[in-house]
Amino acid sequence: MSDNRGVVYIGPGKVDVQSIPFPKLENPQGRRIGHGVLLKVITTNICGSDQHMVRGRTSALAGLVLGHEITGEVIEIGSDVENFKVGDLASVPFNVACGRCRTCKEQDTGVCLTVNPSRAGGAYGYVDMGGWVGGQADYVMVPYADFNLLKLPHRDLAMEKIRDLTCLSDILPTGYHGAVTAGVGPGSTVYIAGAGPVGLAAAASSRLLGAAVVIVGDVNPTRLSHAKSQGFEVVDLSQDASLGDQIAELLGIPEVDCAVDAVGFEARGHGHQGVQEEAPAIVLNSLMEITRAAGKLGIPGLYVTEDPGSADTAAQKGNLSLRFGLGWAKSHSFHTGQTPVMKYNRQLMQAIMWDRIKIADVVGVEVISLNDAPLGYGEFDAGVPKKFVIDPHNSLKLA
Amino acid sequence: MSDNRGVVYIGPGKVDVQSIPFPKLENPQGRRIGHGVLLKVITTNICGSDQHMVRGRTSALAGLVLGHEITGEVIEIGSDVENFKVGDLASVPFNVACGRCRTCKEQDTGVCLTVNPSRAGGAYGYVDMGGWVGGQADYVMVPYADFNLLKLPHRDLAMEKIRDLTCLSDILPTGYHGAVTAGVGPGSTVYIAGAGPVGLAAAASSRLLGAAVVIVGDVNPTRLSHAKSQGFEVVDLSQDASLGDQIAELLGIPEVDCAVDAVGFEARGHGHQGVQEEAPAIVLNSLMEITRAAGKLGIPGLYVTEDPGSADTAAQKGNLSLRFGLGWAKSHSFHTGQTPVMKYNRQLMQAIMWDRIKIADVVGVEVISLNDAPLGYGEFDAGVPKKFVIDPHNSLKLA
Amino acid sequence: MSDNRGVVYIGPGKVDVQSIPFPKLENPQGRRIGHGVLLKVITTNICGSDQHMVRGRTSALAGLVLGHEITGEVIEIGSDVENFKVGDLASVPFNVACGRCRTCKEQDTGVCLTVNPSRAGGAYGYVDMGGWVGGQADYVMVPYADFNLLKLPHRDLAMEKIRDLTCLSDILPTGYHGAVTAGVGPGSTVYIAGAGPVGLAAAASSRLLGAAVVIVGDVNPTRLSHAKSQGFEVVDLSQDASLGDQIAELLGIPEVDCAVDAVGFEARGHGHQGVQEEAPAIVLNSLMEITRAAGKLGIPGLYVTEDPGSADTAAQKGNLSLRFGLGWAKSHSFHTGQTPVMKYNRQLMQAIMWDRIKIADVVGVEVISLNDAPLGYGEFDAGVPKKFVIDPHNSLKLA
Amino acid sequence: MSDNRGVVYIGPGKVDVQSIPFPKLENPQGRRIGHGVLLKVITTNICGSDQHMVRGRTSALAGLVLGHEITGEVIEIGSDVENFKVGDLASVPFNVACGRCRTCKEQDTGVCLTVNPSRAGGAYGYVDMGGWVGGQADYVMVPYADFNLLKLPHRDLAMEKIRDLTCLSDILPTGYHGAVTAGVGPGSTVYIAGAGPVGLAAAASSRLLGAAVVIVGDVNPTRLSHAKSQGFEVVDLSQDASLGDQIAELLGIPEVDCAVDAVGFEARGHGHQGVQEEAPAIVLNSLMEITRAAGKLGIPGLYVTEDPGSADTAAQKGNLSLRFGLGWAKSHSFHTGQTPVMKYNRQLMQAIMWDRIKIADVVGVEVISLNDAPLGYGEFDAGVPKKFVIDPHNSLKLA
Repeated sequence: MSDNRGVVYIGPGKVDVQSIPFPKLENPQGRRIGHGVLLKVITTNICGSDQHMVRGRTSALAGLVLGHEITGEVIEIGSDVENFKVGDLASVPFNVACGRCRTCKEQDTGVCLTVNPSRAGGAYGYVDMGGWVGGQADYVMVPYADFNLLKLPHRDLAMEKIRDLTCLSDILPTGYHGAVTAGVGPGSTVYIAGAGPVGLAAAASSRLLGAAVVIVGDVNPTRLSHAKSQGFEVVDLSQDASLGDQIAELLGIPEVDCAVDAVGFEARGHGHQGVQEEAPAIVLNSLMEITRAAGKLGIPGLYVTEDPGSADTAAQKGNLSLRFGLGWAKSHSFHTGQTPVMKYNRQLMQAIMWDRIKIADVVGVEVISLNDAPLGYGEFDAGVPKKFVIDPHNSLKLA
Repeated sequence: MSDNRGVVYIGPGKVDVQSIPFPKLENPQGRRIGHGVLLKVITTNICGSDQHMVRGRTSALAGLVLGHEITGEVIEIGSDVENFKVGDLASVPFNVACGRCRTCKEQDTGVCLTVNPSRAGGAYGYVDMGGWVGGQADYVMVPYADFNLLKLPHRDLAMEKIRDLTCLSDILPTGYHGAVTAGVGPGSTVYIAGAGPVGLAAAASSRLLGAAVVIVGDVNPTRLSHAKSQGFEVVDLSQDASLGDQIAELLGIPEVDCAVDAVGFEARGHGHQGVQEEAPAIVLNSLMEITRAAGKLGIPGLYVTEDPGSADTAAQKGNLSLRFGLGWAKSHSFHTGQTPVMKYNRQLMQAIMWDRIKIADVVGVEVISLNDAPLGYGEFDAGVPKKFVIDPHNSLKLA
Repeated sequence: MSDNRGVVYIGPGKVDVQSIPFPKLENPQGRRIGHGVLLKVITTNICGSDQHMVRGRTSALAGLVLGHEITGEVIEIGSDVENFKVGDLASVPFNVACGRCRTCKEQDTGVCLTVNPSRAGGAYGYVDMGGWVGGQADYVMVPYADFNLLKLPHRDLAMEKIRDLTCLSDILPTGYHGAVTAGVGPGSTVYIAGAGPVGLAAAASSRLLGAAVVIVGDVNPTRLSHAKSQGFEVVDLSQDASLGDQIAELLGIPEVDCAVDAVGFEARGHGHQGVQEEAPAIVLNSLMEITRAAGKLGIPGLYVTEDPGSADTAAQKGNLSLRFGLGWAKSHSFHTGQTPVMKYNRQLMQAIMWDRIKIADVVGVEVISLNDAPLGYGEFDAGVPKKFVIDPHNSLKLA
Repeated sequence: MSDNRGVVYIGPGKVDVQSIPFPKLENPQGRRIGHGVLLKVITTNICGSDQHMVRGRTSALAGLVLGHEITGEVIEIGSDVENFKVGDLASVPFNVACGRCRTCKEQDTGVCLTVNPSRAGGAYGYVDMGGWVGGQADYVMVPYADFNLLKLPHRDLAMEKIRDLTCLSDILPTGYHGAVTAGVGPGSTVYIAGAGPVGLAAAASSRLLGAAVVIVGDVNPTRLSHAKSQGFEVVDLSQDASLGDQIAELLGIPEVDCAVDAVGFEARGHGHQGVQEEAPAIVLNSLMEITRAAGKLGIPGLYVTEDPGSADTAAQKGNLSLRFGLGWAKSHSFHTGQTPVMKYNRQLMQAIMWDRIKIADVVGVEVISLNDAPLGYGEFDAGVPKKFVIDPHNSLKLA
């Protein structure tokens, strides 16, 4: 049991499955942790934000063990753990959070003040997020376990829905946070920029929240046709018709109640010409155009403080050319940041267990082995409409 | 066009369809109204709260024209009306509200301060609610029209869904208000006391709001089997098994996240014995038992300030023997009052138009003619699982 | 340092200072606690809710060590404590809360699900609240220390304001919670039932929250004159003028925006006659009369599930005869329960440190020695307008 | 009485008092208005946003009658007005709002959908805001009067505090809205960018809301010394010490809980060098630096969709170079737009009447005659720490 393997970042465009140390009940600074557990990883997903690192758009160093979307089985508990025992299944929020600082107590676990010496907010397997070892591995350590872990129902019930439950660690709450902060509720008309997994999760969440109609936009036709197959309206931004015009065809007016940016800083231009190049402010600027006065913009898509790999000089320093005056004229509000997963995951688990949301189908979950992780990274980067879920121990009994 | 007929309260247990005056643009005090419209009534529903009057449990006087659930077509507009024209279809919130007082400006249109000289809150066709003439009639007047009316979509689209849209004047927003004030959201477990139309509307609303599971309880087996046919879980309170035990059979624990009282003061006891008699505090007391700590109780069910018809002396003065200490120990909050329909009806209309809620099926809408209104009152009082919708002009083309 | 003394409940009307065991890092079930601290008690206050036990109105057994309002200095830390070190000063919320269960994560620490085997919610030194030893003592143990403790500023600054800061463990957040749940904000007119310490803290909190005018009512003239000296308006309910009439004299109308019940179940009647006897529902019934339509009632005053000592048979079972229909007619909402202190104490500490609230003066803090605690209990029970603060180690350098 | 005079925009840097038509009960399109009143103007204030027009930074045409901050006495009422009579004093929110559209019903009166044919939101005397005639005049017309007007108390009481009450039409609610949307509450530490009237009103509002400490920053030393005299902490941005360092000197940390941008798009650079030139994104960028993780930015300062007068090409199109990634990393939210005055003015009036806020002193109200309006514009533009209030009829009995 002391063996461990993990998906390791090697350099731009390259990841590898390597032997890594078996986890210990220790924090990145080497301090012993009483309130932690070791997990055998049941499922661990590849995330779009992993791609930022793998594309070389961050300062991640070679050797980093990836993976922040983790579901696992408890195999060892620290002395201070009270609510979990060996054998329990649990979903792990991607945010590492202490449960003891001001922001954690106020439910803002996305910006925990203590788990990352260099800034607010921690995560597993991510550059600048505190040095917590990633979970695209056989085994992983989770600190502040009673606080961070969400206990899943009885094993048999949970394993039946494990393809959905694996989405609780990040993708589903993140899409949901986008929808909630955009003000989505019963009867809303919603536009979601981006048909990748976060966008689709925001779409599924909007439907769960009672939205009247959910429109998903992208420049990738494959992703759009998957979105359509899941029951959402779509707009194709690689076409020259404007976003407003395409919305008006669906709704009668070029305006929605609520808008979600599920794209972030690596956005591409719109239209036949535009799609050739990056246009980091285009999503936000277009959302201001098509969101109603007094509307809200939920922005789960990642914007970075530094983007040295950008072609745009201003963007290299994290600066965007925003048409902020337009949003101001419409009394918009803008809601950003890492999703505080814990605020939502328990209720979303209930929705999954009672068949109110089919998130695995919506995001296109495809289960792969740990050895196939590098292939999954490659395919995902190419834009397939799939969400790759790694099953290191063949727990899901792949053929 | 100057003829008019209406459903008139004659005395305990008796209503009649009579000739009544054609409406004028005048308030009950005879003041000319510039900001009002006359409507040709398209549909107008019989409500459980009408029954309180018809059963003689209020101080309503003979001659009162009933009806506060109104959908109609504009046939005349006052000089100050700006947003409606003759021919428009509109849903009328049951609350008469001025849009100019403090509570209206704060969206609490259920307790408008100006439309009822004797207390806060007005309604059409209801005792002590300001003297506004009821709408179970061919024609009716609506004051403060731009404020009160909700414009329905283009006539053909609207008439296709008129059985659902007719529920926007009261029953759907009222059930929805119960669910919202109970804190229902994605993943909630919900218990709703009462399988009448308000209870069913609360159940449908809970589902729209994303509830994981919705349980409806009643002592009437016919209503329960209708609720079950609509996809809700049910508990039968005419049985001797306790409410908590019946909930535990469904959920594994004798507790829900959110509870709605859709019964009110005319509640009956539980169990084989109890059901024989009125027990006005039983619903609230039982909800405190089965609602989780820190939970909320939404209370759309009507409680009255005076109930001279009650067998219970305290209840005659509107006093209930509540086990308030139990709620206090669990940090419950209690949310009461007439629903401010306008806060919700626009969004619920959107949900209907986009097929997100099938409220007519859920509440068992049955369309009848104006002449059949007295029969409808009788059947409804007997507890059939139906919501009677009067169609005075045969606009829905009954066979 | 292994000696310890505590205030012990002996029987109805009687408390004594006795030798008690020195605390250990163990929970009431004897389990070792890594995430706890031992405190040297700096200040610990006598609370009105202690009086319920001492008057024999609960099932508290002789031998119970009292005290849930604790401020102390850390003298020993468990192995899992990260954010505190020996010598730190801290305020302890009266609620014992784990920081790991659903309600704690949702900021409802007043109804923690794990610290009390018999029901939701724990406290120090209180009957039926989980068996945690009270802090009217020289030393006390605090579990889940990083979560529960609020670190005070640098010692010298803190000791200068210690008479105010000692109010953060209960009385100030409790009054504040009453005000917040009643909807108090800038410009509100507020009525507070009860001029004891909780009522006065609610009054001070209302002022901090920007209330236009704060009116305090009581039947005790000494308490009223103290309230008046602190700048609040008062109404004397031992007089025969009705509450509404007395409010109308101050405001021009017999109605306020917001109402707080800081009395609870041991309420006395109003008027010359009424004041002779207990009238457990009178406060809530009178608040419904004088609160505006759509207003909220904040109810920090304690209501119990059982009150065997009551003269009223229904009240013995915790039942109140509430005129609930009146509240319903006015769309009131009712907010109950133990205050989740942690939700508020950090911000209130800031307000104290920057001189925005003088809570010690408002509630009449009087510092006494541990030996004088029994005298303090007696005087407080007699209704003096004082808040007794025990200083076991003479840390405040009493003369 | 048919004479009227008004302050008229002549061209960049120039306003004049001219004879203008006496108002009629008509909207800008010439439609007769039943629900309007004519006011004799008691006070009408010069606003910083008037300066944008007068400096020639907008497309305002010569001849525009200025003035959107109006307090007046009703001298004529339309046929549909119910709640006002001749002789009543009233404060007029600067937003023209209909009270009948979706956004008005949802309390977003700053973006009324019907009063301005070209976009959401109307105002008196302002370019692109619907053509409603300004109120820096002897007489003015107010439409939708029952909805828009806030009735002031009895004349004698009101006139005693008229210097404060005149701030209810814009400046006080606008500062308050900034504070509220920034999340200010009891115990908050607050930074306000801009020591002009809006900034000072935000500061006074923060204090009313219970803030622990309020820091105001500016590059104008005269304004800063006025702010200091009103009890606020200040930072001088014309100095080279960074904003964070100056905050750290006051608070011990370079960070506040809440931040308000009361400057807007005409911001100047910081430091000895920077102050020489415009730097439209500097305020927002600096607020992201000094606001805590999970904090909110309230942005009452005006940002425009077009700024043809800017030296910066991007800014001419309303584009700002925002370091949005920094805000995202800190989970900030950004709250923009015209203040919906009606949401706040009633409660703020109460706070004034009960002496809870001394807004006239804080913003430096100076009452002048209508003829002196041009002088007032000039002085205000030069940066004096004053708020000029025009008294056209010498109602305040100037010497």
